[in-house]
Amino acid sequence: MKKRVAVVGATGIAGQQFLVALQNHPWFEVALIAASQRSAGKSYAEAIRDPKTGARRWWCQEEPPQQTLTLPVHEASTLNLDGIDLVFTAVESGPARDLEPLYAKTTPVVSTASAYRYEADIPLLIPGVNLDHIQLIDTQKRNRDWQGYIVTQPNCTTIGLAITLKPLFDQFGLQKVIMTSMQGLSGAGRSPGVIGMDTIDNVIPFIPGEEEKVEKENHKILGTFDSGAITPADFLVSAACTRVPVLEGHTEAMLASMQQPCSVDDARAAMIGFGKEFIGMELPSSPQHMIIVHDDPFRPQPRLDRDAEDGMTTSVGRLRPDRTLDNAVKYVLVSHNTKMGAAKGAVLTAEYLHQQGYV
Amino acid sequence: MKKRVAVVGATGIAGQQFLVALQNHPWFEVALIAASQRSAGKSYAEAIRDPKTGARRWWCQEEPPQQTLTLPVHEASTLNLDGIDLVFTAVESGPARDLEPLYAKTTPVVSTASAYRYEADIPLLIPGVNLDHIQLIDTQKRNRDWQGYIVTQPNCTTIGLAITLKPLFDQFGLQKVIMTSMQGLSGAGRSPGVIGMDTIDNVIPFIPGEEEKVEKENHKILGTFDSGAITPADFLVSAACTRVPVLEGHTEAMLASMQQPCSVDDARAAMIGFGKEFIGMELPSSPQHMIIVHDDPFRPQPRLDRDAEDGMTTSVGRLRPDRTLDNAVKYVLVSHNTKMGAAKGAVLTAEYLHQQGYV
Amino acid sequence: MKKRVAVVGATGIAGQQFLVALQNHPWFEVALIAASQRSAGKSYAEAIRDPKTGARRWWCQEEPPQQTLTLPVHEASTLNLDGIDLVFTAVESGPARDLEPLYAKTTPVVSTASAYRYEADIPLLIPGVNLDHIQLIDTQKRNRDWQGYIVTQPNCTTIGLAITLKPLFDQFGLQKVIMTSMQGLSGAGRSPGVIGMDTIDNVIPFIPGEEEKVEKENHKILGTFDSGAITPADFLVSAACTRVPVLEGHTEAMLASMQQPCSVDDARAAMIGFGKEFIGMELPSSPQHMIIVHDDPFRPQPRLDRDAEDGMTTSVGRLRPDRTLDNAVKYVLVSHNTKMGAAKGAVLTAEYLHQQGYV
Amino acid sequence: MKKRVAVVGATGIAGQQFLVALQNHPWFEVALIAASQRSAGKSYAEAIRDPKTGARRWWCQEEPPQQTLTLPVHEASTLNLDGIDLVFTAVESGPARDLEPLYAKTTPVVSTASAYRYEADIPLLIPGVNLDHIQLIDTQKRNRDWQGYIVTQPNCTTIGLAITLKPLFDQFGLQKVIMTSMQGLSGAGRSPGVIGMDTIDNVIPFIPGEEEKVEKENHKILGTFDSGAITPADFLVSAACTRVPVLEGHTEAMLASMQQPCSVDDARAAMIGFGKEFIGMELPSSPQHMIIVHDDPFRPQPRLDRDAEDGMTTSVGRLRPDRTLDNAVKYVLVSHNTKMGAAKGAVLTAEYLHQQGYV
Repeated sequence: MKKRVAVVGATGIAGQQFLVALQNHPWFEVALIAASQRSAGKSYAEAIRDPKTGARRWWCQEEPPQQTLTLPVHEASTLNLDGIDLVFTAVESGPARDLEPLYAKTTPVVSTASAYRYEADIPLLIPGVNLDHIQLIDTQKRNRDWQGYIVTQPNCTTIGLAITLKPLFDQFGLQKVIMTSMQGLSGAGRSPGVIGMDTIDNVIPFIPGEEEKVEKENHKILGTFDSGAITPADFLVSAACTRVPVLEGHTEAMLASMQQPCSVDDARAAMIGFGKEFIGMELPSSPQHMIIVHDDPFRPQPRLDRDAEDGMTTSVGRLRPDRTLDNAVKYVLVSHNTKMGAAKGAVLTAEYLHQQGYV
Repeated sequence: MKKRVAVVGATGIAGQQFLVALQNHPWFEVALIAASQRSAGKSYAEAIRDPKTGARRWWCQEEPPQQTLTLPVHEASTLNLDGIDLVFTAVESGPARDLEPLYAKTTPVVSTASAYRYEADIPLLIPGVNLDHIQLIDTQKRNRDWQGYIVTQPNCTTIGLAITLKPLFDQFGLQKVIMTSMQGLSGAGRSPGVIGMDTIDNVIPFIPGEEEKVEKENHKILGTFDSGAITPADFLVSAACTRVPVLEGHTEAMLASMQQPCSVDDARAAMIGFGKEFIGMELPSSPQHMIIVHDDPFRPQPRLDRDAEDGMTTSVGRLRPDRTLDNAVKYVLVSHNTKMGAAKGAVLTAEYLHQQGYV
Repeated sequence: MKKRVAVVGATGIAGQQFLVALQNHPWFEVALIAASQRSAGKSYAEAIRDPKTGARRWWCQEEPPQQTLTLPVHEASTLNLDGIDLVFTAVESGPARDLEPLYAKTTPVVSTASAYRYEADIPLLIPGVNLDHIQLIDTQKRNRDWQGYIVTQPNCTTIGLAITLKPLFDQFGLQKVIMTSMQGLSGAGRSPGVIGMDTIDNVIPFIPGEEEKVEKENHKILGTFDSGAITPADFLVSAACTRVPVLEGHTEAMLASMQQPCSVDDARAAMIGFGKEFIGMELPSSPQHMIIVHDDPFRPQPRLDRDAEDGMTTSVGRLRPDRTLDNAVKYVLVSHNTKMGAAKGAVLTAEYLHQQGYV
Repeated sequence: MKKRVAVVGATGIAGQQFLVALQNHPWFEVALIAASQRSAGKSYAEAIRDPKTGARRWWCQEEPPQQTLTLPVHEASTLNLDGIDLVFTAVESGPARDLEPLYAKTTPVVSTASAYRYEADIPLLIPGVNLDHIQLIDTQKRNRDWQGYIVTQPNCTTIGLAITLKPLFDQFGLQKVIMTSMQGLSGAGRSPGVIGMDTIDNVIPFIPGEEEKVEKENHKILGTFDSGAITPADFLVSAACTRVPVLEGHTEAMLASMQQPCSVDDARAAMIGFGKEFIGMELPSSPQHMIIVHDDPFRPQPRLDRDAEDGMTTSVGRLRPDRTLDNAVKYVLVSHNTKMGAAKGAVLTAEYLHQQGYV
């Protein structure tokens, strides 16, 4: 029998991506959907129809799952979680701060919001990178006296960074990481997200709060779990985050300086070999490779590579040496900000939680 | 009486920008235009008309100067420079290698090509940055027994970098510079340049040869002229060059580490104060500011800022501290790759040469 | 002494375009600016600064006029028009419905809103096309017992259409007009206008209400003023309006069928000869040509042609015969939707009103 | 046993699309690939690798089929077709004129080139629309004394037009069709196709030869086969073809005037009901619907709808009445120019030929 899951924030773009990621899922079935008061009481099909123009407010490339259209939408703040095994939340940070502890009293919560990411007893997980951090759940339940718990997913920009740094960190130690991102528009959502007039023939050099998130989250993700707590990793991160006229996919120009000597070939081997154990678990939403390394110098490109392995792998290219920092390599990565970087990555985390008996 | 100038490569996009930059120029008049054999013998108007479709192959936003349309196009390889005071060359590196020494035997040459940029006795000039390097002309003429000479302009990506680094270099010394560029399409020209299918919804992470040029050129430009030669500056540059769906304007995310302490306010003051003396010369194509510093964190943006002061100023924003390197600041710059970064920058160099008696 | 004008809706994109169009105007000076309650009481500089991020919410390519930045912003609904000679309104249709009659009681109003466009005694004016319709002002003042009056400007999509149809209508009579538009994003404004995610690599085939406006407005504009009223012109218009990834400039593929025989050469001659008398008035914001006709088959293009004559001329190309309808020609036009098509066109109308003694 | 097919022009973008469309095909296997002399003698993997930069010149979203990479590339002009059952040609019109008759002497040829489209005894086929025209093959073989034959596919812009017109033509008769296209870039290919600088923030209002092709091809496709020949259909077509910044998918704004009364509901019913018999054949590359009709007024959009049913269906929306012409309706369609509109459409034609015993 499948686990019954709830999707909160189901009318927004991130919630819609959850519905797509959960369609025909072998382990989970969407039993409950919730949104704000405005949508509550309608069927999902009604809730995503613009009453004025008749347009359907659905923004995934995939069609909305047929069985979801007839589900009633419940109000997120008064949700009855009886019989629900797991809650996925896809809401803004503000509402998440109020809603998630409410749900976690009784039920496991997997969240893409930033509200609880930085609290010491809340795991910040990337599948294949630091799933051992789920042990923090026990600390959390003890601390907060909850029957459920909250686990969070990092910012979409952090994810490609952390995935490609992890094998370098493990084998060579990290000293310094300098990153410039060229981020796709879908990362900004649609309310209103980025205005069309600002994106055409342009680069927007600032994404409020993004650089701080990237710098902070990597330390926690690559930190060590020990005696019930995470000791953050100790290296320096400098980020410059920009928005470019790309629909989906974050491109990141990376420079990583290591503690030990690390040639370009060493880095390539470390990346190619990374994550075999996790991949071997064959979780339903898992990619076949955590990282794909391209030799073609013109790759990765966001439009060509974001969808590799259904958006769940990170594509790396242009691996080359750097002489400005110690033991340094440069590379470019592309990761899919709304697949591995959001809903589908969170579903993969939930699959691991389930496999480990946490759901 | 105006100086009579030749424009070689006048049918290409860079040559057309020279014609626009020289239109109604107070000191220079276009007396001779040259191109490859295919165009030679036609009027300029004919040479830029596609015989099959009737389309005009003219790619500047400004209209072609009326008086140019009737000029005959001469063949570049057999050019008679009698009565010509100065040659501007806007051709590819290959032809430049053969043509420029031919012209320089008798006549000053100002070139945007890379053919001679890296030779020890050829100045690599940016107006307002290192115009004292024109003294190398004397060495060059002696070495090569030429009556004229060649001066070159750097790669368009180097220019914003070098202009903003110069005040930091002068006041604080430079240790390390790490740069990621997001370059406009016009930098790739049109033969065929970047294909439309590759630029839509995409980032191209590689521009062949560009990173090497940027790394090399800065050392020469910020080098010291002494005893008839340039001693290159001694700091490290690491570049990652990418192409984004932007028509014109190069955006560069910069991280500069200095030898001396340099706060964000110090860096801002150095940039704002930079180039007053050069600006004070009031050369015809000069900007009013070498650098404009924005406080609005969403600036500079290429579409909004590339045309500031007719594309001759460099716009800086997002000045902020960095803790990964010593005495470091981060910023974003936008410079116009086909105005200050190409033809109009070369015309400004020529104005200085003229003012100093070199033309 | 200059006429003192008010700009209502001055913080929005259309209002900002008025401020730019009125900068250094020889006849008008901006004496009063108004907006909604949210901005009232602030200086204009404050009103357009985002309090959270410090970003400047200014969206014209030109910088904001220096003298405007220190003006106080008044509340639109309680505006004191003492000493004001003319009001320009740049607000949405809803507020316009309430505000404009309020102002018109005492003061002339030139409006870009659609609220009163279709009322029988309100002129719907395009400079150079139907300025004789200002005679309707007398009817209006009598009907409504106002000291001032309202004149309106058409929808931005109507303008290129009506300007190019007028010479055909006058010389050959019109039977049928079939038009498909490919409209720039700026026509949708910014609140939120068109979302970036929807415009990349895409065409949006529907603009609510636009086709009806285009069909209706042409009849009124090309109508005849007689005995104090307009008799609408009698021809058929069929419009298909789409949005394309273009910043500014509306491109329209036209098919016009005439009552009299009209060859391609006839149509070209009619368009080239159009509007000489109006142009001859040399009003400050006037173009030098109402219509420019291109022979290059690849023109007009919105990016290349929208700014011709500072966005005040309409560019036509691809004039060719059509055999599906009687006496028909096809052509493509580009007109600037936020220059002639909005604020600057309204300023040109006001210049004419002033010259005719109506201000 | 599968039929052995050859793909000629396999290194170009259209040829690559054939390789993708034929991957794992149940009936056909790619046994032979051919290209120009430059590629001949190399493996396919080598032939599509840029020797200078190492970049892979492969332009489909899908990866190249693994088994193709090791196949040797033969020279198209000296191809040995022993043991080959069918040839797909994906070359320019010039080479097609020479090569196709060479192949057709012995072997069936299905071509996307325009070289033989307009010859009286060569069928111009769209699957589901006029497959009865394959009877022309017998006339052709007799006329030309060939053992094989040539069948051709229309221009990609014609296809959506003809598919949606066919049900209207059959039920109501057609009088006049007026169409404006907004075409994707991939229709122009890559040699060099459309230059990136021309497509950004722009519309190109002219595609040489395209309007004539669209006007001519519809008459032949909707013509009647009788007594060994096609009698072209008798209605008028007027096309305006433009290029917009869209990667793939042609959007067409249609106005169709019928001979019999046809309401919007009639037109919708005719389109929805269209092609049931052909769909019922369940050919391997067939869509499930020839036409999908959207009620959401913002659909179809090329980015959202081009890939519907793997690019093999035509999406229609905005069905509405028109009063300018007799019995007229307007609608917007999106069709995939490189799937149904090119290689995969040709493969579907070949499937039908095979099923009917022509291969």
